[in-house]
Amino acid sequence: MVSSAEEAAFEVGIKFGTLYHQFAGTPVSPASAGSLETAIAEAIENQPHCVDVTVDVLEDALEAELADGPAEYTELTGRFMEVEVVVDYEGTRAVARMAMDDGYPLMELVNVGE
Amino acid sequence: MVSSAEEAAFEVGIKFGTLYHQFAGTPVSPASAGSLETAIAEAIENQPHCVDVTVDVLEDALEAELADGPAEYTELTGRFMEVEVVVDYEGTRAVARMAMDDGYPLMELVNVGE
Amino acid sequence: MVSSAEEAAFEVGIKFGTLYHQFAGTPVSPASAGSLETAIAEAIENQPHCVDVTVDVLEDALEAELADGPAEYTELTGRFMEVEVVVDYEGTRAVARMAMDDGYPLMELVNVGE
Amino acid sequence: MVSSAEEAAFEVGIKFGTLYHQFAGTPVSPASAGSLETAIAEAIENQPHCVDVTVDVLEDALEAELADGPAEYTELTGRFMEVEVVVDYEGTRAVARMAMDDGYPLMELVNVGE
Repeated sequence: MVSSAEEAAFEVGIKFGTLYHQFAGTPVSPASAGSLETAIAEAIENQPHCVDVTVDVLEDALEAELADGPAEYTELTGRFMEVEVVVDYEGTRAVARMAMDDGYPLMELVNVGE
Repeated sequence: MVSSAEEAAFEVGIKFGTLYHQFAGTPVSPASAGSLETAIAEAIENQPHCVDVTVDVLEDALEAELADGPAEYTELTGRFMEVEVVVDYEGTRAVARMAMDDGYPLMELVNVGE
Repeated sequence: MVSSAEEAAFEVGIKFGTLYHQFAGTPVSPASAGSLETAIAEAIENQPHCVDVTVDVLEDALEAELADGPAEYTELTGRFMEVEVVVDYEGTRAVARMAMDDGYPLMELVNVGE
Repeated sequence: MVSSAEEAAFEVGIKFGTLYHQFAGTPVSPASAGSLETAIAEAIENQPHCVDVTVDVLEDALEAELADGPAEYTELTGRFMEVEVVVDYEGTRAVARMAMDDGYPLMELVNVGE
């Protein structure tokens, strides 16, 4: 027996794992950050029960990273994005976020409810 | 406020999204199915709260697919694997499975409890 | 000893492998095809020596695929995209394409020269 | 017109792009490094014209990385692996390697010939 709240939490977890592991490693620069944000959000919003995906690829963090070396791009990782995903499972909503926490990207279930 | 049951469901969802989108697309043949199974399971078991991952890459399904054409390998997709993941979040367990359902790979939250 | 023509061919091969295995598996629908095309092209153009990337995510093929079942999206694979990549390695150009050939996605080195 | 040497270089480039972008981001620890090495090598060896793939996931580098923080695993990136791929295209061999070079993972075409 699984509740709607647990189903909603499961579904928003799937979206986060998908988002991170589909797109981590993508070559990204400040100039291409915008198109990647849009594509990630629209891709994940295709998935079942997904209501809204907000992706911020952090251009300032990319610029700071690239200022230190000769490369003009890097690979997308959790350090370079903030994400919020909202799922609605039969009327129960789950909201999760990813942001940096003490140097590590933390995926956090923020709220589950109606 | 998020319950331990919801956290456990969220965590097992992350593992499923990770597993699928990290490894879907991997070149796979009946001969390499075994090493891929082991690597997927050990990779996902690294993630927080993950107790057990069982991956069955379906060699029979791979052989049937490859019997129809000239290729000797294909890309890993949900049609070619069955997966079970068990997460323990502070004493609450969540179990999820992926298997084919009417032609589509279905990720299903099977149980959440102590 | 490696010639510039061989280096150009190597570099365009890297771009193709990157493009395919970074983005295969992405959830895609006719509505999200456009943003994915743009993001793929801009991501790969970040890589060294890459002059131009053209990606066509095939909305007609996506619609035909989705007409057969209940799902509103599918996973990106070679059946749903045509790609051309141009690399310039120290004045030597290499052009490669991917398109379907007898039911399989074929990556083909089209031309190497000045 | 494309020579066999250029085709061999293109093919070995594809293998490198595939290997890196399929497996970068995989959760990895010193304990799971061995199974990942084997799976990566066997996966890429499935691809056309691929004769040999050698993958060394650098357990010492993983241990050094993890010694600095609370996490027990990290994500696979170029810093944590050395790779050699050998392709044979109709009798012409191409050899490529990836290793760290001044802080960046460098993919290098080492040799093309008979």
